[in-house]
Amino acid sequence: MDLLDGIATTRSIRRYTAAPVTDDQLATVLWAASRAPSGSNRQPFRFVVLRDGPRAAVARRLLGDAARAFWAAKRSADGYDRGSGADERSAKARMARTMQDYVDHFDDVPVVVLACLVRHRGADPLEGGSVYPACQNLLLAARAIGLGGVMTQVHLPVAGELAAVLGIPPDVPIHATITLGHPAGSHGPVRRRPLAELVYEDGWGEPAPWARDPAGTRFTQAGPPPGSRAAER
Amino acid sequence: MDLLDGIATTRSIRRYTAAPVTDDQLATVLWAASRAPSGSNRQPFRFVVLRDGPRAAVARRLLGDAARAFWAAKRSADGYDRGSGADERSAKARMARTMQDYVDHFDDVPVVVLACLVRHRGADPLEGGSVYPACQNLLLAARAIGLGGVMTQVHLPVAGELAAVLGIPPDVPIHATITLGHPAGSHGPVRRRPLAELVYEDGWGEPAPWARDPAGTRFTQAGPPPGSRAAER
Repeated sequence: MDLLDGIATTRSIRRYTAAPVTDDQLATVLWAASRAPSGSNRQPFRFVVLRDGPRAAVARRLLGDAARAFWAAKRSADGYDRGSGADERSAKARMARTMQDYVDHFDDVPVVVLACLVRHRGADPLEGGSVYPACQNLLLAARAIGLGGVMTQVHLPVAGELAAVLGIPPDVPIHATITLGHPAGSHGPVRRRPLAELVYEDGWGEPAPWARDPAGTRFTQAGPPPGSRAAER
Repeated sequence: MDLLDGIATTRSIRRYTAAPVTDDQLATVLWAASRAPSGSNRQPFRFVVLRDGPRAAVARRLLGDAARAFWAAKRSADGYDRGSGADERSAKARMARTMQDYVDHFDDVPVVVLACLVRHRGADPLEGGSVYPACQNLLLAARAIGLGGVMTQVHLPVAGELAAVLGIPPDVPIHATITLGHPAGSHGPVRRRPLAELVYEDGWGEPAPWARDPAGTRFTQAGPPPGSRAAER
């Protein structure tokens, strides 16, 4: 797969077949992750892989329950079943079905990877610069070998319990919960805001006339559905 | 370029020829950046491109001065000229030469991109999950079209002055300063710690025997030179 094509077509994949992810596939995507840059090349990223081990089972149940609680709250708060969400053909209703299916089957996801960060100083809003590039490499490499995945924060409400179960040191935050598997079903294109809304030149908000999307680019609005509580924050 | 090969060979590039980066090249790498995932697909990333505009000149000088001050302090604190650094053929001395050259020529870098984040809530250590995947896509796409770049935090000491010059709103942090250009000279391979040190299964620190590096992988220790103040933190 071509590098630019891979970047253009890697999207969040939340539905997986029952096919297992092999050791070699895991090694490939995690090695790709480890090629990412980090501050001073400290490589503070650590990946805890959860498959069918005894502690993985406990951790995965914690994550699944957290994911279900998270989505139930978000579905209600963001009004996924109101407005256009009442029309089952709407993008909003499709997204709600995908999310419901994702959390309902979370415990059966072929692989869960916890991306952790070994801090060398206090918590910092910029520390993710040393772990999220690795997560993106992982997701791109998954696409390259026919897998799909999604980066989530479903661990947040149960981070302490997960750390206890898995022996993660207290000063090591989990920065992402990534699920991986073989994509099931069909998936639409990556949709983003038009590039002109995201790129400025020479000053904030200043148009960059050259920042044009290639022909055929598909667009979407950003964030939660309009009219939701989250959208108004 | 192949996706996995691109991921494997994208390294930080700090030396550039004088060749300009074209509008089309910029559009390509920024569009790639915008394909990245973000929380709830909010797409809170914004990219301010600095080339030869009037405000860019002021901003770039601020960044160059900050980069030189940062490196002078780090060179001394991390002992780049002591120990093995006294041997000009050592990895430490090579890194010091590259960094000195980078900051000396910072004002002539073909393009500077400031990656900013529009927050929808307070500062958070995990917020980078919605901007650094885009930065990594940008760097990979640069590699795909023959450019090179590096993600830095040189803006940190002058973030307030930069915001004032460029009109960046007070609640919008700059998460990365990325420099881009056509690579000059030869560049070594990506070097990281052995994968076994970065990947665990079923629990923190538990070996994952399948997590092997491919044949030919080049290694390095992590972080600043051993014996430096930073390394001991």
